[in-house]
Amino acid sequence: MRIPDRDGVLRAAGKVAKILPKTPLLPVEYEGRSFWLKAECLQPIGAFKIRGAWHRLSDLSDEQRAHGVVAVSSGNHAQGVAWAARKLGMEATIVMPRGAPAIKLTRTGELGAEIVLYDRMSEDRETIARGLAAERGAAYVHAFADPWVIEGQGSAGIEIASQLGSEPTRIVVPCGGGGLTAGLALACPQTEVIPVEPEGWDDVCRSIESGSIQRVIANPPPTACDALQTFATGEINFAIIRKRCGRGLRVTEDEVRTAQRFAFARLRLVLEPGGAVALAAALAGKATIDERTVVIASGGNVDPAQFAQVLRDED
Amino acid sequence: MRIPDRDGVLRAAGKVAKILPKTPLLPVEYEGRSFWLKAECLQPIGAFKIRGAWHRLSDLSDEQRAHGVVAVSSGNHAQGVAWAARKLGMEATIVMPRGAPAIKLTRTGELGAEIVLYDRMSEDRETIARGLAAERGAAYVHAFADPWVIEGQGSAGIEIASQLGSEPTRIVVPCGGGGLTAGLALACPQTEVIPVEPEGWDDVCRSIESGSIQRVIANPPPTACDALQTFATGEINFAIIRKRCGRGLRVTEDEVRTAQRFAFARLRLVLEPGGAVALAAALAGKATIDERTVVIASGGNVDPAQFAQVLRDED
Repeated sequence: MRIPDRDGVLRAAGKVAKILPKTPLLPVEYEGRSFWLKAECLQPIGAFKIRGAWHRLSDLSDEQRAHGVVAVSSGNHAQGVAWAARKLGMEATIVMPRGAPAIKLTRTGELGAEIVLYDRMSEDRETIARGLAAERGAAYVHAFADPWVIEGQGSAGIEIASQLGSEPTRIVVPCGGGGLTAGLALACPQTEVIPVEPEGWDDVCRSIESGSIQRVIANPPPTACDALQTFATGEINFAIIRKRCGRGLRVTEDEVRTAQRFAFARLRLVLEPGGAVALAAALAGKATIDERTVVIASGGNVDPAQFAQVLRDED
Repeated sequence: MRIPDRDGVLRAAGKVAKILPKTPLLPVEYEGRSFWLKAECLQPIGAFKIRGAWHRLSDLSDEQRAHGVVAVSSGNHAQGVAWAARKLGMEATIVMPRGAPAIKLTRTGELGAEIVLYDRMSEDRETIARGLAAERGAAYVHAFADPWVIEGQGSAGIEIASQLGSEPTRIVVPCGGGGLTAGLALACPQTEVIPVEPEGWDDVCRSIESGSIQRVIANPPPTACDALQTFATGEINFAIIRKRCGRGLRVTEDEVRTAQRFAFARLRLVLEPGGAVALAAALAGKATIDERTVVIASGGNVDPAQFAQVLRDED
């Protein structure tokens, strides 16, 4: 497999800049400290995944495009791929877990994609998706272990550096499969990149700690962070992450809800649980923060009833 | 009173650009139509009011600043004045209605302002505020009928024109006292500016229709749009509005809630009811929309429990 690199990130950033406005870098003040929040939830699909999907699909040849694309996703990569495919006139088929947030299923369908449902705990989604792709001769776009996807997500780091005037000291980033984490590490070689995971879904933290790829523990606890429920990072992701990330951080479900409420009341942003974990680490004092630290708010696709419950809870 | 003008708006825009990042102009698609949304809810205080307050207070002399500032506000102008005063090392006293959203009262206090409460229906807030200002020798900053405030709010229009490359065809704007409406009209002389009010609080619509300033009807209906509960526009506002605004629009409380839910689910933005009326007019088909139409989302300060209720309602 091709190795993603910084030139690829720069090329992706150029392509993304032609089609998507920069997402804002918002100043945040919290208990006397200041940092920046990169609002990727304001992308047209409500998540950064549009970046990698666009870089990947727009690099396909006309002949490849004619055979369509297959992807697996709990909903944000799904919408990214569906959005990019629609823009390029391609057919998209997305394998999504039963029980994914209704808003993500609905939106993916509205973008014109065919949705195939699977059971998250008993079925192997990659087997289903690769089977479909082979059957149709379609491109299979992995949600994170793909060089174009990594480079595309990294375009967010190029934007951040241009918005700040130079690379930040530190980027705190929600981590599922590690596509965004690896991409940002390529984009900003001088920056400390800190992935954040929900407790119990901390395979990347444990991989960094042990020096080799670890899977999520058996019977992981329930988490509201549907976007971060990946079982293990990819080899091309980890090759970058082990070199560039000294540590990962874990946050609790309570800390995530606190971050969602903070984003609502102080930033007027809607964050989904998985999109709020880096902010949660910053607010909980787990991530070191300075005035050139950037916290990524990676997504905002959350069902209204679930969000209403978060607003009403007081932990 | 000094007459606000476009040079003043340009000067305000220059001052605002030094201290506040541009708020994003987000592309919106709805039922096959496209327009732009100016997300003023992403200002540090969650509303555009920070613009006028900054232009006004930063123009005061050192001696004037030493005597502090008094303002009247249901909460957004309050936060704008408190924010600007803190930045300039001034004391701020804000006269606020009992029953203003708790989030606005809390935030204004956190910004270091002294809060004086009054009863919205039985007491005259201006009498209270002007009395306090006279007593203390403080500057009185009216929420809308002030040339600096109008020019400052107009800086949003200069930003919009620079973000679009030229003036928009049309700006649809939430209207309380008409500070933002008048400011945008000065900023963008080629643009159709359409103020939007909640039904029953339509004094500006009726003023435009009759050609003279009208007050809100006796016993106006309840509205969730606390930010737009002004009883009449000011003379300096109306001098501009009557020349530049051919009509105003009225929206129902249901249309406002629909717009809040759309902003939540499609834009991942938190809008307060008053901040959502222009979007409501666009979604309801009351405002004409084209690809160079800008809808202002003017504020996002809403109590969590109230917002949770909006998310749970399905009209």
